[in-house]
Amino acid sequence: MSQKLVIALPKGRILKEAMPLLRGAGIEPEAAFDDPSSRLLRFKTNIPDLEIVRVRSFDVATFVAFGAAQMGIAGNDVLMEFQYPEIYAPLDLGIGRCYMAVAEPAELLADDDPGQWSHIRVATKYPEITRRHFAARGVQAECIHLNGAMELAPSLGLCRRIVDLVSSGETLRANGLVEVERIADVSSRLIVNRAAAKTRPEHLAGWVDRFQEALDRA
Amino acid sequence: MSQKLVIALPKGRILKEAMPLLRGAGIEPEAAFDDPSSRLLRFKTNIPDLEIVRVRSFDVATFVAFGAAQMGIAGNDVLMEFQYPEIYAPLDLGIGRCYMAVAEPAELLADDDPGQWSHIRVATKYPEITRRHFAARGVQAECIHLNGAMELAPSLGLCRRIVDLVSSGETLRANGLVEVERIADVSSRLIVNRAAAKTRPEHLAGWVDRFQEALDRA
Repeated sequence: MSQKLVIALPKGRILKEAMPLLRGAGIEPEAAFDDPSSRLLRFKTNIPDLEIVRVRSFDVATFVAFGAAQMGIAGNDVLMEFQYPEIYAPLDLGIGRCYMAVAEPAELLADDDPGQWSHIRVATKYPEITRRHFAARGVQAECIHLNGAMELAPSLGLCRRIVDLVSSGETLRANGLVEVERIADVSSRLIVNRAAAKTRPEHLAGWVDRFQEALDRA
Repeated sequence: MSQKLVIALPKGRILKEAMPLLRGAGIEPEAAFDDPSSRLLRFKTNIPDLEIVRVRSFDVATFVAFGAAQMGIAGNDVLMEFQYPEIYAPLDLGIGRCYMAVAEPAELLADDDPGQWSHIRVATKYPEITRRHFAARGVQAECIHLNGAMELAPSLGLCRRIVDLVSSGETLRANGLVEVERIADVSSRLIVNRAAAKTRPEHLAGWVDRFQEALDRA
């Protein structure tokens, strides 16, 4: 049973929070993983049949959905945006906590009643979530897709509203924006490719259990 | 004539190459622009009516297309992907030079004739360019959109081919990939919002001239 298993981890902020859990589950990446000058993206671990790939947070879900990785760590923001039927998320890892919210300039909110919206223009990294959220109450949201810096959009006249992740609220405040409504709480999940879980049930269930144990100890 | 003008610049590698041209055109950003710890995204300059926003390279085109910025610096890869009719690109700045290519594993190419392809699966950051490129010769390209780490995709079984930017070719070689065909040469352009150019022709044409002069001197 030496078929290779690949786990996809997100670059950046979440990775720091994820590593203690990974190590708690008994996975230790090769030394190059912690070398900031390394351009490698694929790493061996102390487990002979387990490799790590380090990719963008949005790409973790894509790698797992297409079976290029069998497991991964991804925020439910990404899972909600793509809604890949090939992925299931057995474990909330409780890291990367933040929430997704609608925000607009403070001076606009005074005259604004979100209950009266019928058509709005929104800058966001999450066009699918945004459209679905507003469509559910009959509001048509025209989304302008941005990869970052959404908080600049209202003051530059791109749109009045944004949908973005909020953690401390500092970025909203610094840009004169206030929260109008929350869409969802966000945290990172252990995700598994469904087909892999069916064809290699013991192997994958074993890893889910080890992450659960690491969580229980943390 | 004190109406504000905003220029959108791309974060990262291209920014370093763009700054000498920007300064050559007489634009000096406020000190915070060069402070790596600053979380600001919008900056004043020595020109009273000119501000800079620093955003992702893909977002530069979106900010300019929607008139949130009147000028910007963007690669023709991004312009080709979005094909915004609201943007024109009067000046090739000759920076950020690379090219876009199709690549696949070296061991596959031996048995492969690109002239025989009818349906291929491709991992890429450029699904529109890729689809158009192959459709033009009757090949249907099923694109898997990734934001980065395309070069991992073939070895993980996600797809056989990728479409990606190539500069030295080092990343392809390091991942056992070889170039199959070139799609386009890439460099960064000065881009202008068409509506702004029509409503404020002297203002915007003046800046295009200053960038041209800075290029001539460089």
